[in-house]
Amino acid sequence: MHNQRFYTLTISCPDRVGIVARVSTFLAEHGGWILETNLHADRDADRYFMRMEIKADSLPFHLAEFRERFAPLGRELQMDWKISDSAIKKRVVLLVSKQEHCLYDLLSRWQSKELDVEIPCVISNHETLRGFVEWHGIPFHYVPVTPDNKLQAYAEIGRIYDEVRGDCMVLARYMQILSPELCAKYPGRILNIHHSFLPSFVGAKPYHQAYERGVKLIGATCHYVTADLDQGPIIDQDVIRVDHSDSVDDMVRYGRDIEKAVLARGLRYHLEDRVLLNGNRTVVFR
Amino acid sequence: MHNQRFYTLTISCPDRVGIVARVSTFLAEHGGWILETNLHADRDADRYFMRMEIKADSLPFHLAEFRERFAPLGRELQMDWKISDSAIKKRVVLLVSKQEHCLYDLLSRWQSKELDVEIPCVISNHETLRGFVEWHGIPFHYVPVTPDNKLQAYAEIGRIYDEVRGDCMVLARYMQILSPELCAKYPGRILNIHHSFLPSFVGAKPYHQAYERGVKLIGATCHYVTADLDQGPIIDQDVIRVDHSDSVDDMVRYGRDIEKAVLARGLRYHLEDRVLLNGNRTVVFR
Amino acid sequence: MHNQRFYTLTISCPDRVGIVARVSTFLAEHGGWILETNLHADRDADRYFMRMEIKADSLPFHLAEFRERFAPLGRELQMDWKISDSAIKKRVVLLVSKQEHCLYDLLSRWQSKELDVEIPCVISNHETLRGFVEWHGIPFHYVPVTPDNKLQAYAEIGRIYDEVRGDCMVLARYMQILSPELCAKYPGRILNIHHSFLPSFVGAKPYHQAYERGVKLIGATCHYVTADLDQGPIIDQDVIRVDHSDSVDDMVRYGRDIEKAVLARGLRYHLEDRVLLNGNRTVVFR
Amino acid sequence: MHNQRFYTLTISCPDRVGIVARVSTFLAEHGGWILETNLHADRDADRYFMRMEIKADSLPFHLAEFRERFAPLGRELQMDWKISDSAIKKRVVLLVSKQEHCLYDLLSRWQSKELDVEIPCVISNHETLRGFVEWHGIPFHYVPVTPDNKLQAYAEIGRIYDEVRGDCMVLARYMQILSPELCAKYPGRILNIHHSFLPSFVGAKPYHQAYERGVKLIGATCHYVTADLDQGPIIDQDVIRVDHSDSVDDMVRYGRDIEKAVLARGLRYHLEDRVLLNGNRTVVFR
Repeated sequence: MHNQRFYTLTISCPDRVGIVARVSTFLAEHGGWILETNLHADRDADRYFMRMEIKADSLPFHLAEFRERFAPLGRELQMDWKISDSAIKKRVVLLVSKQEHCLYDLLSRWQSKELDVEIPCVISNHETLRGFVEWHGIPFHYVPVTPDNKLQAYAEIGRIYDEVRGDCMVLARYMQILSPELCAKYPGRILNIHHSFLPSFVGAKPYHQAYERGVKLIGATCHYVTADLDQGPIIDQDVIRVDHSDSVDDMVRYGRDIEKAVLARGLRYHLEDRVLLNGNRTVVFR
Repeated sequence: MHNQRFYTLTISCPDRVGIVARVSTFLAEHGGWILETNLHADRDADRYFMRMEIKADSLPFHLAEFRERFAPLGRELQMDWKISDSAIKKRVVLLVSKQEHCLYDLLSRWQSKELDVEIPCVISNHETLRGFVEWHGIPFHYVPVTPDNKLQAYAEIGRIYDEVRGDCMVLARYMQILSPELCAKYPGRILNIHHSFLPSFVGAKPYHQAYERGVKLIGATCHYVTADLDQGPIIDQDVIRVDHSDSVDDMVRYGRDIEKAVLARGLRYHLEDRVLLNGNRTVVFR
Repeated sequence: MHNQRFYTLTISCPDRVGIVARVSTFLAEHGGWILETNLHADRDADRYFMRMEIKADSLPFHLAEFRERFAPLGRELQMDWKISDSAIKKRVVLLVSKQEHCLYDLLSRWQSKELDVEIPCVISNHETLRGFVEWHGIPFHYVPVTPDNKLQAYAEIGRIYDEVRGDCMVLARYMQILSPELCAKYPGRILNIHHSFLPSFVGAKPYHQAYERGVKLIGATCHYVTADLDQGPIIDQDVIRVDHSDSVDDMVRYGRDIEKAVLARGLRYHLEDRVLLNGNRTVVFR
Repeated sequence: MHNQRFYTLTISCPDRVGIVARVSTFLAEHGGWILETNLHADRDADRYFMRMEIKADSLPFHLAEFRERFAPLGRELQMDWKISDSAIKKRVVLLVSKQEHCLYDLLSRWQSKELDVEIPCVISNHETLRGFVEWHGIPFHYVPVTPDNKLQAYAEIGRIYDEVRGDCMVLARYMQILSPELCAKYPGRILNIHHSFLPSFVGAKPYHQAYERGVKLIGATCHYVTADLDQGPIIDQDVIRVDHSDSVDDMVRYGRDIEKAVLARGLRYHLEDRVLLNGNRTVVFR
């Protein structure tokens, strides 16, 4: 959290001697002031991960030129890399159903500018939350999903997302399973909050499953959506203690608090380019 | 934790009006001073659970007479009930393999009398920890387990346990799977610590499984052993945060801290008669 | 959390033999079905605390008659006691300033009926949150507080609270210190959320104090307001991990999540009559 | 945790452009393979902190030559820097009194080589734990401390520490307050575990203080010892939940678990050169 404008450079590449030296020397030669650096070497995968925040006005050129100048190094070291600008707000499309807790939580953070993004629209398969969303000055799209219209409904969601130029899509307790096509179209760009501590209790009614098994902690998991239900890369998780006196309804109630906290945290990591994919796992530079 | 002698009465019975009234009136009529009471109604199972600590010297009779006088009420209300005496130390048999962390932890608590029990012996399939155990003045039995001698080995363990009149058996990172016969013989009396947050990562190498899945928390589970591997009633669980920088070895190391803490807690609940079985779930009166 | 109507009976009295027997027998004689019971003996203070939830339709009379019939027992055992009816919603007056996180959180819970109360009005020393409050159909009172008008302002707050027949007052990050008169007038009925883990960092700018001291966890405390600043009985607390990379602004941001969670929890305990005062400490029957 | 030999380089210096570039280029030019890097810029103090693990056999020279070659860069950038060798075990002197829980915990980790250090001796003001220490083959020094002999006693402790060439001293629930002279002589080399969540409950009987205040979490703090009692830089802290049913004795018991966990963690950070001093605060590169 800096008040000044900065660029965020993220890199993933095969590990070798000198990566940090090459990148940091490139920056230092142009006067780049590094605000924050995170590095990780995955010794099993022989892969290196970097994230750097660079003060924007410490560099003598803009992003377009940065990209041009950095590209040769990126090619040489076989990097997957990208750089983003803190002055350009990301565009987050929210999908909700009837439950309001995650939506209230995210809009609260958006109101206080803690979540400093554009929310071009909210999409829902119910009209329930229209008033609340529109009071915030955010467009609301009602896209009903029935057993018969799923294909068209998901196509419509994809169309809206493209039209508003979304950077990512957040399933904020959206109670539908997206089509494999939609999942495949936006890899690493759709975040879901699952109401269990994955990989326990995949699928429907996880709190009922947890109650039946008699676990002493319940949890929630924020992950990227893939075509495999609840199998995508995990961004963050948390748990809360329960005991024999808690009914399924109590667990649902406690769970909501974990869900909204974990979703907000996972979304922030994603938006700040703190999450790098490493196969089906994630590197999260907190 | 009281310094004076007390009795612990635990009850499980069908729910109905007046259970607490009947039991507490029985106690009050004899001057029984209640130190601690825990009650739980399971509304799904229509079952009632109680645990009471009663000052021993507030009652005008001893346990044998208590049992005789209380029996008619127990029959009338269809109770499973028992009463224990804090002055009679429970006898805990520990089973270990080569890893010492849980053993050190339990013997530390035993030395300080936090764990105020008899440990009539430690049984192991390795000689590794003999010296440490014997230094504490506790007999050590080496019972090797090979693919060929499993039946005899488990029979021998059962024999030793019976011979030393064990009240419960604790698998303190004992790396063997007990025979179904042994599990069936001592239901609710064998405690295990499993090194994952069950029901995730059942079976072998749970930390490797956790690493592969990329979870952000790892855990441990203390449960009663049944013939179904890692499926017994859960007594306690806990988790610890990990991230991408943690290797499997790091997880194993963090995990040890959770394992010993959860096992010690679960064992204490068991020894203080705080755990009541409710089908495959537990009521734990902390 | 029951769906059926129930009464909540809370009792605090000197400890002696037979309290539970007398109370539960009174209930059983009238067919009272107990849904939940919590008991606590404070051995230092020689005081006994009880909380019982009783199915309303299991009793053959209404609350007025219950109170009349129970009164003699209450007098005999020198009880402080009260009984409330789940069908009568409590009336909670919220006080806020400019920060919205606790308000969003509480109104989200109120919308979903998790927080099943009346909110007769919100009072604020700023106009900032008027629109949000009024969108929910809740009256909003702007009561500015300046160095010169404090007495009148707090008198006005007291007047509004009385007029709307408030049952409790919640300072949801209200950035003013109430007058000692107001605190004294409503003992055990005003809840505050303090943004530190009390007793550390009493008073102003606790996150700055925490940053300066270099603590590794920051917290929040929900407590009853008394005339002594931040010294009232603590209802609940929680903490979150921070490290050297976190600025004061980061701590403020993390802190908001703890504040709203702890306030919501503390308020629920209070509203469900789970909090009993024990000197300057609390018994909280969770 | 690597199996191969590595060097750990830690640096603290004024912040400026190019620090990482200069250091990493120095390493890359000699083929240095970086296993792990942590960086932190303290923007308030305008100070930069680094920690790097470098594969020992990737460099063409030994530590003495490394030091010589690196020194000019260190001078130029005004660094406080040092480099250590994973092959040279640190020498840790433990101080204990009568309580065994931290000692058992540390020796358990030492036995399993999780704590891969030399323990040249244990010093105590009581004979209580001699047998346990000596069973592990570790010399035990009894240095009684009375109101009259404090100066000599602390001088003796310092003498033993110097004689065994200790790298750090760990007060593992050592119930004496070291002399200011001793504290001043080994800054950043004496670790203590305080049994409260500092800065709450400084000084004696913190659990009693916590009980009186009615807090809902209790904690422990691992910190460097300075001449100001309980005011030294904090390395790590943790807390555990308590409630009204917990007596002071219960808190003491729960507290032991937090104490040993936090001490073990803080000590590991220290031994792995993960703790850098920043005024009275710490940078802890986990």
